[in-house]
Amino acid sequence: MNVSIIGIGQTEVKELWDTSIRHLAWYAIEAALDDAHTTDIDAIYVGNMLAGALSKQNHLGALVADFAGLRGIEAVTVEAADASGGAALRQAVLAVKSGLVKTALAVGVEKMTDATGAPVTAAVASALDADYEAAHGLTMAGAAALLMRRYMHEYGLDVADFAGFSVNAHANGADNPLAMFRNRLKAERFTGGPLVADPVTLFDAAPMGDGAAAVIVTSHERAMDMVPVPVQIAGSAIATDTLALHDRKDVVWLRAAEQSAKRALEKAGVSPDGVDLFELHDSFTIMAALSLEAAGFAERGRGWELAKNGAIGRNGRIPISTFGGLKARGNPLGATGVYQVVEAARQLRGEAGDCQVDGAKVALTQNLGGMGGTAVTHVLKVE
Amino acid sequence: MNVSIIGIGQTEVKELWDTSIRHLAWYAIEAALDDAHTTDIDAIYVGNMLAGALSKQNHLGALVADFAGLRGIEAVTVEAADASGGAALRQAVLAVKSGLVKTALAVGVEKMTDATGAPVTAAVASALDADYEAAHGLTMAGAAALLMRRYMHEYGLDVADFAGFSVNAHANGADNPLAMFRNRLKAERFTGGPLVADPVTLFDAAPMGDGAAAVIVTSHERAMDMVPVPVQIAGSAIATDTLALHDRKDVVWLRAAEQSAKRALEKAGVSPDGVDLFELHDSFTIMAALSLEAAGFAERGRGWELAKNGAIGRNGRIPISTFGGLKARGNPLGATGVYQVVEAARQLRGEAGDCQVDGAKVALTQNLGGMGGTAVTHVLKVE
Repeated sequence: MNVSIIGIGQTEVKELWDTSIRHLAWYAIEAALDDAHTTDIDAIYVGNMLAGALSKQNHLGALVADFAGLRGIEAVTVEAADASGGAALRQAVLAVKSGLVKTALAVGVEKMTDATGAPVTAAVASALDADYEAAHGLTMAGAAALLMRRYMHEYGLDVADFAGFSVNAHANGADNPLAMFRNRLKAERFTGGPLVADPVTLFDAAPMGDGAAAVIVTSHERAMDMVPVPVQIAGSAIATDTLALHDRKDVVWLRAAEQSAKRALEKAGVSPDGVDLFELHDSFTIMAALSLEAAGFAERGRGWELAKNGAIGRNGRIPISTFGGLKARGNPLGATGVYQVVEAARQLRGEAGDCQVDGAKVALTQNLGGMGGTAVTHVLKVE
Repeated sequence: MNVSIIGIGQTEVKELWDTSIRHLAWYAIEAALDDAHTTDIDAIYVGNMLAGALSKQNHLGALVADFAGLRGIEAVTVEAADASGGAALRQAVLAVKSGLVKTALAVGVEKMTDATGAPVTAAVASALDADYEAAHGLTMAGAAALLMRRYMHEYGLDVADFAGFSVNAHANGADNPLAMFRNRLKAERFTGGPLVADPVTLFDAAPMGDGAAAVIVTSHERAMDMVPVPVQIAGSAIATDTLALHDRKDVVWLRAAEQSAKRALEKAGVSPDGVDLFELHDSFTIMAALSLEAAGFAERGRGWELAKNGAIGRNGRIPISTFGGLKARGNPLGATGVYQVVEAARQLRGEAGDCQVDGAKVALTQNLGGMGGTAVTHVLKVE
């Protein structure tokens, strides 16, 4: 049985101080139900990372199902740090494939603004190894900085070599009304950004924000009767790696990203050459460079070149971050993976407006947890 | 395709101050791998509720897979408050049924002793509605007290009418070397327990502890070649309800428990009469009474009678808490649902030692989140 997307929904990403986590989830679910013209959902998979820590609310599955008007149905939370959204969709796909769940909804939701300051930084660092990294003060940005510095050392690069990732993301985000930041970024301003964790600046790091996105899936057979353009989930895979960077034999290679991309592409019968756009996990510019290499779009140590030579642009060889990516659309951690799939689906349906990649038929999405400790890859396609 | 259990493992439940969460999970996984005589696992589903809050560690899927020697495989965390363990097993079942995952492992793990006092009580209360219950100071025990008081009022009962649940649990726990409490409880001492939240006393409330349990599942066909007594998962269902008690039309009826039991039993083609033992969620005596009613073993308002007339004993009509239940074996929240299944499997294999229910062929397990906001039911059977 093949699985296809019949509904998508999303909220804008920003600091939504007045909106509770249940409202955020509801807005995205409502939009997806409207899009699919159905309210007949059998199971909900909620992708979320931080509600327990920041909103003192666990048990989101039942809560969200009830608040969205679907009281009583099967519902659980799926967590894999900032790969929670992608992981939730993976469970929805497995559930439909099992034949026990006819229609499943994956909703990624993150409410960052129920807390502020150091507690948020500490909660986000729970994606790292708590005993061997975070306990010693390492933050997500700090881990990215270690990785970026090492990569620069290995390949003789400067900070300016990463500029293209953020310039591209902001250029695309400027055309996305739901993006957190719609300002363009000039390449020459990139190196002057305020330092977050040397060498990572504000212009390398994706801003965290509140947001929710939802995707409804069912069998392709049913989908064809329900919607004009069902988007097939042709491949789906999760792979993992150590959380701690020091436990990896090869620190400048995202092994889980490589493995999950390989499996998902193989399942879909698609090679990187056949991919029209790639929604990758640009939580930091270094993660974008490493993701391009791991997924097979660049040789080892050469992912950064694609940002220099324009290959990642809307009309380039492999467009990325087409609605702004994590960097400009914003990064609502546990929701991000679902945003990526919603955006890819809009591209394949030809509904991406000013962000449209012409003639897109095959999209790859990849959602990473922490420094790539988890990688969730999906291949989407339309006939 | 039918799904069967090929391996089970568990740790003792107690305050394990010196054991980290990754070690706990590893011990249970190792035991399950040994039991199944295999290390060939494709996916891990980690049931956990509180690691983010108490151990500052999210992203347990990848961490646990790596630490258990299974680096790289598919792995995520599944959360549904104290129904997380049962929910993790449900994902493992769906994954195997999907045909995309050959062998899946569900491990429930909870590490309570990384924190103490009020932060733990607050973290546990994240199973309730944070905005409408916990924010006003309601705790899990407080919610159970409201429910118990209402039930006593509706049916004209005294606290002493609940004694049989705890007396039975402790009697069974005394025979389980892995139980947190192995002392027997005299019925006449029951009403003299220290108050936790009137009318709930220490003798109504299950003690929280550290622990981990694991279950390995694969297709029944493969299972028959791998182990002498594959335990079939003949039915599996999750249903949900409102988190907040005040949102329920009928507060003394666990609707999610009823719905999930009904669906799982129907799937298995089994009626309550055909069930030989029931591992229910006796987090509080009131939850045991309500669970017996919801699952179809007693009429509305009469679940407590089964504890008075001996029906729940090892040789009674419907034995419950056969290894001590949450009350005496201990309640490691997100792990509890997997303990229930491990214990039921030991019964059906005839390996329950002093806790054995003679001739058990069909077992029901039911894991609740919070006050029954989530209910996960599994039907296990052997030929």
